[in-house]
Amino acid sequence: MVYDLIIIGSGPAGYVGAIKAGQRGLKTLVIDKKYVGGMCLNWGCIPTKSLLESAKMLQKVKSAAEFGITGINPQELAFDWQQTVKRTFQIVSKLSRGIEFLWKKNGVEFLMAEAKILSPTQVEADKRIFETKSILIATGSRPAPRPDFHNALSLEELYSLDRLPEKPLLVGRGANLVELAQFFRMIGKEPIILADELPLMPSLDVYLENFIHKKLKKDKIPLIPIREAIIKDKHIIYKEKEYPFDRAINISFRTAVLPEIKPDIAMEGDFIKTDINHQCSIPGIYAAGDVNGKSYLAHVASAQALEVIDTIMKVQLPVVERTYPLNIYSEPEMAQIGITEAQIKAKGIEYRVNQYSLSANGKALAEGTADGFIRILYETKYNEVLGVQIVAANATDLISEAGILMELEGTTFDLARTIHAHPTVAEIYMDAGSLD
Amino acid sequence: MVYDLIIIGSGPAGYVGAIKAGQRGLKTLVIDKKYVGGMCLNWGCIPTKSLLESAKMLQKVKSAAEFGITGINPQELAFDWQQTVKRTFQIVSKLSRGIEFLWKKNGVEFLMAEAKILSPTQVEADKRIFETKSILIATGSRPAPRPDFHNALSLEELYSLDRLPEKPLLVGRGANLVELAQFFRMIGKEPIILADELPLMPSLDVYLENFIHKKLKKDKIPLIPIREAIIKDKHIIYKEKEYPFDRAINISFRTAVLPEIKPDIAMEGDFIKTDINHQCSIPGIYAAGDVNGKSYLAHVASAQALEVIDTIMKVQLPVVERTYPLNIYSEPEMAQIGITEAQIKAKGIEYRVNQYSLSANGKALAEGTADGFIRILYETKYNEVLGVQIVAANATDLISEAGILMELEGTTFDLARTIHAHPTVAEIYMDAGSLD
Repeated sequence: MVYDLIIIGSGPAGYVGAIKAGQRGLKTLVIDKKYVGGMCLNWGCIPTKSLLESAKMLQKVKSAAEFGITGINPQELAFDWQQTVKRTFQIVSKLSRGIEFLWKKNGVEFLMAEAKILSPTQVEADKRIFETKSILIATGSRPAPRPDFHNALSLEELYSLDRLPEKPLLVGRGANLVELAQFFRMIGKEPIILADELPLMPSLDVYLENFIHKKLKKDKIPLIPIREAIIKDKHIIYKEKEYPFDRAINISFRTAVLPEIKPDIAMEGDFIKTDINHQCSIPGIYAAGDVNGKSYLAHVASAQALEVIDTIMKVQLPVVERTYPLNIYSEPEMAQIGITEAQIKAKGIEYRVNQYSLSANGKALAEGTADGFIRILYETKYNEVLGVQIVAANATDLISEAGILMELEGTTFDLARTIHAHPTVAEIYMDAGSLD
Repeated sequence: MVYDLIIIGSGPAGYVGAIKAGQRGLKTLVIDKKYVGGMCLNWGCIPTKSLLESAKMLQKVKSAAEFGITGINPQELAFDWQQTVKRTFQIVSKLSRGIEFLWKKNGVEFLMAEAKILSPTQVEADKRIFETKSILIATGSRPAPRPDFHNALSLEELYSLDRLPEKPLLVGRGANLVELAQFFRMIGKEPIILADELPLMPSLDVYLENFIHKKLKKDKIPLIPIREAIIKDKHIIYKEKEYPFDRAINISFRTAVLPEIKPDIAMEGDFIKTDINHQCSIPGIYAAGDVNGKSYLAHVASAQALEVIDTIMKVQLPVVERTYPLNIYSEPEMAQIGITEAQIKAKGIEYRVNQYSLSANGKALAEGTADGFIRILYETKYNEVLGVQIVAANATDLISEAGILMELEGTTFDLARTIHAHPTVAEIYMDAGSLD
C-alpha cells in the first residue's frame, strides 16, 4: 500500500495537517515518537496556560475581598502544585483524545515510533518501511541546550517535579520566559530572569517590551542580561548584588528537532530550509512548523501545514504575506498583529498611532482589569490598519478582531463605524478608531 | 447666546452625542435632572456588571480548589453587599468624572436641572430659557410601573438596601431579568423569575433562549409564566407548588421617560416617534436612545446620537440597516449579532449553520469555562455571514470580531483563512468557519 502523505510529528503542524489531509481524502499516516499533540499540547501552549490559569486564580482569590467576598484568610492560601499538574493533564488528555477522534473520523492512521526518512517516498518506522507520495516533516523544536547551565531543567521536566524550586533561575529569552517568571511570582516564588539578549521579545513592538519591563520591575522579578552577569555556583552577581537561585530552567530560543533523514537535505542554520510552499530542497518532502525556523508559534505551524495540504492538492492560493497574531500570556496578557512602529518607520510609511487606555473602559473597571491599552497603527492615506497592539486581561482573544479587520484590509473608519456592544472591553477598538 | 444643540438627558445617547458635538465644534449644552451618565452608568449597565463581577468572583473562589488553590473554607465564604456597592460606585464615579472631563475638553456645558421644551428653539431649565438651533431628547426609559406589584423595588432602589432579599421575586422580562436572577443565585439567594411573557428575550435566537432555560433549571431558578401563576400575598402558586418570596423587584419591559414638551409631538405608543434620522415630527427636535423605542441597548443609543450629530452637521451617511450586537451578562455570557435562524427562514434564504463547541477549545478548558459554543449562520451562495451567536465566559467581547466581519460583509472563508492565535477562545471562529 502507498500512502498519499506521511506526517512525522503530531504537534500543531502535524495534527492539524493530518486532519485536513484526511478530510481532503488523502491516505495519511502520522508518526510520532512519543506524543499525540506534540510539545504544544503536551508540555507547551496548553499545559503552561493551565498553570498560568491556576496562578491567576490565586491572584483573583487574593483580590476577592475588594469585590466583596469575605471569609478568605490570605495567610492560609497556598498553591497545590500536584493538583495543578493533575488538572493540567486532565485537560491535555481530553484534547489528545479529541485529536485521535478527529484522526479516526477522517481515516488518518497513527503510529507511535521513531521515523527515519529513507527517500522522498520511503519512511522507516517500527522496523517497517512505508511507501508514500509525499512527506511532511513537522517535528518541531526544543530549547537550545545550555553548556553554561548543563543541569538546567527543561519545561517538560518541570511537570514531574514533586516540589517547585523556591528561587528558580529562568535562563533564555522570549515570551515563555516572561510567562513562566510571572507564574512563579504569582504563586509566591522568587524567580530571576537571566536574559540571553534584550529585547526579551524581539518580534514585539518596543512599546510592549517596555511595558513588560516595567511590569516585571513592579512584580519584583529581577531581569538580568547574561552579558553583564557573573555566574557562580547557585549565585548570579549583577551590579554588585547577589542573586541566589536553587534551580536553573532552560527557556532558550529554540532549535529544530530533526528526524533521521537519509537523503541530503538543505539546511538554513539549524533549521530545514524550505521555499514559500514549505517544500524542502528535495521535491515531495515538506517541512512545516518550528522545524523550518520561520516561526515558533503554534498557529503559524498549523497554517503552514494547511498550506502544504493545499499545495499537495494543487490548490493554488494567492501568494500573500500572511498576517498572524502574537499572543503572550503575561499578566496582563499582551497581543500584537501586523507590523511594529519601527517597521513602519523603516518602510517610510506616513502613519499615525491611536492609543486608548483601559482605565476609561467600564467593563475593564468592573472586572478589575483596567491595567492596559490598545494601540492602532495605521497609514494616513486611507487609514488602513497596519498593526494593532493590546495589553489587557484577555488581549489574546481581543486581538482576533484585528486579525479579521486586517485580513479584509479594514480601516480605522471601519472600527469607528462598527457598533460595539456596551459595556465590553472590545469597545476600545471603536474608541481608538474614533480618535482622529 | 444661542446654542447649536441642547441635549436633554446624559445617558449613552446624551453623553456620547455631546462629546461628538463638541468635537465637531457645535456649541452644546447638556441638561440632566439628576445624573451624569444616565441610567446606564449610574444604575444600569455599569453597576449591574460590577455586581455580576462580584458574584462571579464568588463562583471563582468556590472553584479555586480545582485549580490547586488551598486554604479556602467554603463554609466561611460570604458575600459583603455593602463592599460590593461601595466598589461599584467607585467605578461609577470614576467613569462620571471621565465624561465630565471629556465634556469640558470639548467645550460642552452641563446643567443639572429639569428641562422643558418650549419650542424647537427654546428650552426652559433652572428658571431660565435657553435658545438653541436643535434639540436632542435623550431621556431614556424606565421599567413600566406594575399595578400587580405596586411595592416592587426598582433596580435603582436595590443599591440603597442595607440587606438584600433572601427570596427575591423578579417580575418582568428581558436580559436584565436573567442577569439579576443569576446574580442572586450566585451569591446564595433563592430568586424566582415571574415572566410577563415567553420567550424571556424575544430578540434572541430561540437556540440561545433554550440554552438559558436549561441553565436556569440547572441553577435551580424557577421560571414561572405570570399567566399560569396565582399571586397571593408573598406567595406564587404555580402548578400546585408554592413559591414564597420576600420582595418583588420590577424588571418590566421599558417605557419612555419624557421631558415636558410644549409643542405637540407625535408619539408611537409610549415612545417618541422618529424618522430614519431620528428626527421627531417637529423639525429640529431629535430623539435618540430608549426614548424613541427603537432599541433598549446602550450602544445603539450612542450610535443613534452620533447619527443625529452627523445629520445636524449635514454629513450624509449611506442609509443602511445597521448591524449591532446583543450582549447578555448571564453566566456564561451570551452574545448575538445579525439575524436569527427564524428570521433567515422567514426571508427564504438558503443557509447553513456551523456550530462548534467550546469543549474542544484548549484555552476554554484551561480557564475552566468550556460550557458554550459558537453558531455561525451564513447564506450558501457566497457563504456571507448573516448571524453569529456565542455562549462563552467572555461572549460579549468575542462577538466584536463578528461585528467587524459583518460590517465588511465577510464570509466563513474569511474566518477560516484568518490565522487566529493558539490557544485562544477566539479560535472557535476559525474552527466553525472551517467546518464546510
